[in-house]
Amino acid sequence: MAMDIRTSNLTTPVTVAEYLFTRLHQIGIRSAKLKWVGSVNELNAAYAADGYARIKGIGALITTFGIGELSALNGVAGAYSEHIPLVHIVGCPSTISQRNGMLLHHTLGNGDFHVFTNMSASISCEQAKLLNPAEIASQIDHALKECWVKSRPVYLWLPTDMVEKKVEGERLKTPVDLVEPKNDPEREDYVVDVVLKYLHAAKNPIILVDACAIRHRVLGEVQDLIDKTEIPVFVTPMGKGAFNESSPNYGGVYAGSGSHPDVAALVEGSDLVLSIGSLKSDFNTSGFSYRTSQLNTIDFHSTHCQVRYSEYPGVKMRGVLRKIADRVDVLKLSKSPMAKVENQVAQNMDDSKTITQAWFWPRLGEYLREGDIVVTETGTPNFGIWETKFPPGVTGVTQVFWGSIGWAVGAAQGAALGARDAAQDKRTILFVGDGSFQLTAQEVSTMIRHGLRVTVFLINNDGFTIERWIHGMDEAYNDISMWNYTAIPAAFGASEKQASSFVIKTKEELEKLLTDKTFNEAKGLQFVEVFMPREDAPRGLKITTEISARNIARTE
Amino acid sequence: MAMDIRTSNLTTPVTVAEYLFTRLHQIGIRSAKLKWVGSVNELNAAYAADGYARIKGIGALITTFGIGELSALNGVAGAYSEHIPLVHIVGCPSTISQRNGMLLHHTLGNGDFHVFTNMSASISCEQAKLLNPAEIASQIDHALKECWVKSRPVYLWLPTDMVEKKVEGERLKTPVDLVEPKNDPEREDYVVDVVLKYLHAAKNPIILVDACAIRHRVLGEVQDLIDKTEIPVFVTPMGKGAFNESSPNYGGVYAGSGSHPDVAALVEGSDLVLSIGSLKSDFNTSGFSYRTSQLNTIDFHSTHCQVRYSEYPGVKMRGVLRKIADRVDVLKLSKSPMAKVENQVAQNMDDSKTITQAWFWPRLGEYLREGDIVVTETGTPNFGIWETKFPPGVTGVTQVFWGSIGWAVGAAQGAALGARDAAQDKRTILFVGDGSFQLTAQEVSTMIRHGLRVTVFLINNDGFTIERWIHGMDEAYNDISMWNYTAIPAAFGASEKQASSFVIKTKEELEKLLTDKTFNEAKGLQFVEVFMPREDAPRGLKITTEISARNIARTE
Repeated sequence: MAMDIRTSNLTTPVTVAEYLFTRLHQIGIRSAKLKWVGSVNELNAAYAADGYARIKGIGALITTFGIGELSALNGVAGAYSEHIPLVHIVGCPSTISQRNGMLLHHTLGNGDFHVFTNMSASISCEQAKLLNPAEIASQIDHALKECWVKSRPVYLWLPTDMVEKKVEGERLKTPVDLVEPKNDPEREDYVVDVVLKYLHAAKNPIILVDACAIRHRVLGEVQDLIDKTEIPVFVTPMGKGAFNESSPNYGGVYAGSGSHPDVAALVEGSDLVLSIGSLKSDFNTSGFSYRTSQLNTIDFHSTHCQVRYSEYPGVKMRGVLRKIADRVDVLKLSKSPMAKVENQVAQNMDDSKTITQAWFWPRLGEYLREGDIVVTETGTPNFGIWETKFPPGVTGVTQVFWGSIGWAVGAAQGAALGARDAAQDKRTILFVGDGSFQLTAQEVSTMIRHGLRVTVFLINNDGFTIERWIHGMDEAYNDISMWNYTAIPAAFGASEKQASSFVIKTKEELEKLLTDKTFNEAKGLQFVEVFMPREDAPRGLKITTEISARNIARTE
Repeated sequence: MAMDIRTSNLTTPVTVAEYLFTRLHQIGIRSAKLKWVGSVNELNAAYAADGYARIKGIGALITTFGIGELSALNGVAGAYSEHIPLVHIVGCPSTISQRNGMLLHHTLGNGDFHVFTNMSASISCEQAKLLNPAEIASQIDHALKECWVKSRPVYLWLPTDMVEKKVEGERLKTPVDLVEPKNDPEREDYVVDVVLKYLHAAKNPIILVDACAIRHRVLGEVQDLIDKTEIPVFVTPMGKGAFNESSPNYGGVYAGSGSHPDVAALVEGSDLVLSIGSLKSDFNTSGFSYRTSQLNTIDFHSTHCQVRYSEYPGVKMRGVLRKIADRVDVLKLSKSPMAKVENQVAQNMDDSKTITQAWFWPRLGEYLREGDIVVTETGTPNFGIWETKFPPGVTGVTQVFWGSIGWAVGAAQGAALGARDAAQDKRTILFVGDGSFQLTAQEVSTMIRHGLRVTVFLINNDGFTIERWIHGMDEAYNDISMWNYTAIPAAFGASEKQASSFVIKTKEELEKLLTDKTFNEAKGLQFVEVFMPREDAPRGLKITTEISARNIARTE
């Protein structure tokens, strides 16, 4: 059975709780040496930890056995799907109660205490049941490394009677090893040579930056490569924010048929696409509508590379990209044409007072400023944001692949907290539809509680517009109740000093608000309800949902 | 692979959707021949379907693949744990998309479309993947039977391309067979004889009615047995509402050490406890503190019976109870002493204006009236309600075993809808703590949307009082934000006609409200915020949490 560690054998005994929390702090999880955030429910907490990780690098979530962990599952699954490093700690009954199969609350009544852990197995890259003090410290260190390197959730199961057990504190003097294993040098060099051969021969190469370039932290390598080569750079919807959109090398958002025609022409006309960290999901590709050829593509991934149809399993992109940046011969590179990217505000202006999706998103680009964190919800915002050119240093936060509606409200709370913990005095700006907002509305309460700097743009278009476009434009199941949205902050306890609310129905009102100095500089919560027409949708959404609906429903 | 059904072979072709919905309607799931309820999120929807099933007999829940079903898991697991028949229908991508392993949104990116279904396997008693039109009708019928007979959730997985496939509509003319298989008569008679032998010999037998007597629908058999024998009846916390508390045979709530001393004396002094549908979880037994002996106990379960230590696997209680009621010889029965049960309002009165838990719950008993549906949340209400004597025909709705905080708000919505669908003009009265309310607050919006008749008593005691009593009376993690609760209905869109709000801080104010005719007769939403002291808790909660904290944390 479990070995006993005698405290007397330990040089610097610390409790399991102290060990775990110190480790979390060392790898960057804060809120004041682990401050209790206390989200309003577990799903919101998972979303918040996800948002936090997207800003601060890694996030953690503590839930209780059974009820708490199951409530969080969708949020954790999203982190798994989207490659977010998240430490999910589950407090569970004592090993003694488990051994006795006690009929405790939060169980299924069958004496099986492992059933919930098993449910998390497919959405975590490592599960550690902390049952034996002799092993706990190394289990924790190993799990945190897996979490970071694989950039996916890990699951730590902590029985109540283990919390105060003593483990070796000396280990804490050495940080957890988070270094990604290096590629085999010979194999890596081989791939680099192959890539360089194609790159030097290409007439109009481009770089396409996608989600996993951000998640697996190779943006530095990508930036160095671009700085040296000045190859045109495009981003996918999930890659948006990965590259400075004010750079002359930036070419826009590529999403297959959903792209602007000039962007599509450049990407699809390229004879060599360096595709970095791609995640070609339906909503990230306007329904699998890429018109690029694998014969013209080199794929860089966190686990392998692929040159045309040659696969190189185990050769991870980081080392390859670094060497390409180092070794590329710029004299051998061909110059590619570029398109100018701008916020097309004037082009989308019309005579009506009504705020249209087409006008809103470019106009927003002029409101944003350096360093902003922009959180966009599944729904119209995730597609509208394609039309927004970011100022430098803007971080885009979206959940395009997993696409869980309601996620963005929790994620915005976590992102704002992450920025504060990183000592960044940034604005977190959330764009969320009315339908989505209702799922997780109460996380606004946590924003208020912690005085976070968040501006919420709630798009009131009377229901689930994205779902209307997928299926059922007039079906009742896409309708929602009309809330009095701007009353929400006060109902959740905000004083007038803590939160301001605005109702915006016309272009003119929005113009005035977006250029108001107090609004731009506000440090607390601002809640803006923006009315838009019920069936109005961004260009990219209309194209994508049309194709997506066909894919989902296809019968042959 | 899948066989094809030619529509021409079907006598009365109906679509799968029509077949499924007709079956659901036939077994009692309504809302106007399946009205779309549209809960605000999936967890709330699962809680609502659970509450609906507790009133209407069975409930159904429709979610989407991945994000939706995972969000609902905690609610479905609660239904599994608590023996609630719930049909969980999951709409998933077409079989074609699945076969092609498409990188659709809401997937983990690994081409595995079955991973979420597998996560539901341990919390459903039947899973049916509806992939082949030739089998779908019988799969649905079988799943519904399992759901009803086992009184637990079933999971139906419906790909988009199956929805419009045709199945045989002739089957719909015969209702689904929901009849529980009968016991083997010889074995059943044997058990009945053994039970009668002990019953006729007992000096002071009692009946103890618990959760599974309600869930497995043997209250009719129990009532007949009591009507004939006049044996004293006690209920457990989870059995509360199962028996008419105005009956002279009613003895009160038995929960081990948490019972009133006179109740404990009668139950524990009995020489024969007929224990019906017991579910001896920690919170249902004040931390496993029964002082009854198995030597004096006969257990009746949905799957087996047990007389002292003799087990009778497969002999289900329904047939046994029916025969005992038929065959018991009342002349051979001994008369037991009884205690009188009353709402101890005067006894718990004190001089202060403050509303105490001790005074509140008995006072509530005088406010309740015949037919009310009383929903109590995990937390102080689940324990306080022990002190409330119900008028006849009151239905108690609690989730004592699974104990997921926030459940009651969704459950109250579902219960009120269930009552309406059953054409019962009943009051649904919800008692919920402030901390719990915050988890699922937006389900109030669904109550407003459907004009449901719900009175909410929100107990504002500044945080998670039950958790304070378990661990950490002054810890920050038991604190919550102070909301402006009575502003919630209006923020969720209720007009003054649709909802009334009340703030109650003194005994006098509560007295006035509870005796107000308009308040008693209101047909819509009423929201009452009742202030109680932060660390004040019902007697039963204090006793139970003290023992429970010891059990959870025990280290040997």
